[in-house]
Amino acid sequence: MRYKMIFSYDGTMFNGYQVQKEKRTIQEELEKALTYINAKKKTKVTSSGRTDRKVHAKMQVAHFDLDITITDYKLKRALNSLLPEDIHVISVLKTSSDFHARYMVKSKEYVYTLNLGEYNPIERNYVYQYNRSLDISTLQQSIKYFEGTHDFRAFISSEDKRENTVRTIMKTDILMDNDIIRIKFIGDGFMKYQVRNMVGLLIEIASGKKRIEDVERLLLLKQRKEAIKTAPPEGLCLEKVNY
Amino acid sequence: MRYKMIFSYDGTMFNGYQVQKEKRTIQEELEKALTYINAKKKTKVTSSGRTDRKVHAKMQVAHFDLDITITDYKLKRALNSLLPEDIHVISVLKTSSDFHARYMVKSKEYVYTLNLGEYNPIERNYVYQYNRSLDISTLQQSIKYFEGTHDFRAFISSEDKRENTVRTIMKTDILMDNDIIRIKFIGDGFMKYQVRNMVGLLIEIASGKKRIEDVERLLLLKQRKEAIKTAPPEGLCLEKVNY
Repeated sequence: MRYKMIFSYDGTMFNGYQVQKEKRTIQEELEKALTYINAKKKTKVTSSGRTDRKVHAKMQVAHFDLDITITDYKLKRALNSLLPEDIHVISVLKTSSDFHARYMVKSKEYVYTLNLGEYNPIERNYVYQYNRSLDISTLQQSIKYFEGTHDFRAFISSEDKRENTVRTIMKTDILMDNDIIRIKFIGDGFMKYQVRNMVGLLIEIASGKKRIEDVERLLLLKQRKEAIKTAPPEGLCLEKVNY
Repeated sequence: MRYKMIFSYDGTMFNGYQVQKEKRTIQEELEKALTYINAKKKTKVTSSGRTDRKVHAKMQVAHFDLDITITDYKLKRALNSLLPEDIHVISVLKTSSDFHARYMVKSKEYVYTLNLGEYNPIERNYVYQYNRSLDISTLQQSIKYFEGTHDFRAFISSEDKRENTVRTIMKTDILMDNDIIRIKFIGDGFMKYQVRNMVGLLIEIASGKKRIEDVERLLLLKQRKEAIKTAPPEGLCLEKVNY
């Protein structure tokens, strides 16, 4: 039986989502718990995509298959009792056998959080502490250039050799709550480092180091030959995955 | 020269505020940094009061004396560069030599945070996760009985042998933000465990295990002979100290 699972995690103490030898990862913790529940049969988890080291998720989605029979409610409880306190299963529901957590994604929502105010110890792992001045109106203007279908090659690593780097961003937003700035992107898919590089460029523009026109110029460049400052991971959170 | 310092901390990884042998405490970290700055002369820090293990502070206040000459701005910078990332100095200002961070307190504000909704890994160290139902209107009614001047003997530890256990609570409030409930107390002073025991009783009342009248009854009891569930420390935060 196939299950669709919605879960959250605090990425601080993980070496990212994907299994890596001898490192603590989210995928490894999930597979360990599910394998135990699935009568010790090695159980694989397929998520909507990976997140990097120190990146968080409020509603990540994955699928997996179980041989045993268990109610959704009991499965959620069993998982949460086995998982460490920095991962939490929000819901787990039986789904059709052709549901695929990665291939069927319609859109994803990412939020990047900046703190322009006083450093706050209890938020230190969840925001990018930015103590220079930023022009919010410039930030609001420049982010809009990311909307639409573009080749985001300039915003991924030069070592990333994938063929198709065209993605669509349906919506962007800047949300403000006093000194906390939340930069939101909704798109059909995001590549490794793409959000952090887009945010890095926006910060350079809003702090006067680059110009608003640089967004368009880099989107038309279609190659990674210009250095962009990658914003640090702790400010990034996968907020939602839509199917 | 005497200084008044306002600072914040994430209590999660500390064994409370006060120095204890071979344990990591907030006072110890502050005194270590200040002693280093004060030309290695042993420097003592006096705060407005202690906080327990895992309890946080948004604006704690302390005073200390330095022999060296340094601007307030440079002192703040030096402190923050020496302090660990879970303590942060918000401001430090020269003050009169008779300022005393403990004796001159006019009032203190504490907030206790409950999460009645889905467990959220990134908030796990800052809220008390409460997954049974609570009657908010009962909570709102019963907290009001704490306002005024009362003998809070029944709300401290039976081992606490201090003479004067009369305190005044000027204001209480219940703030709601979806599933997050914040219980606020402003008073002229709070004793060890007092806030967590008041919250513990309020939760028992709002969950139907005790009655609203029990607040008054315990305030008139003037002794600790009845067990109250002490609410866990991670939900508690010292928000402000007024002089």
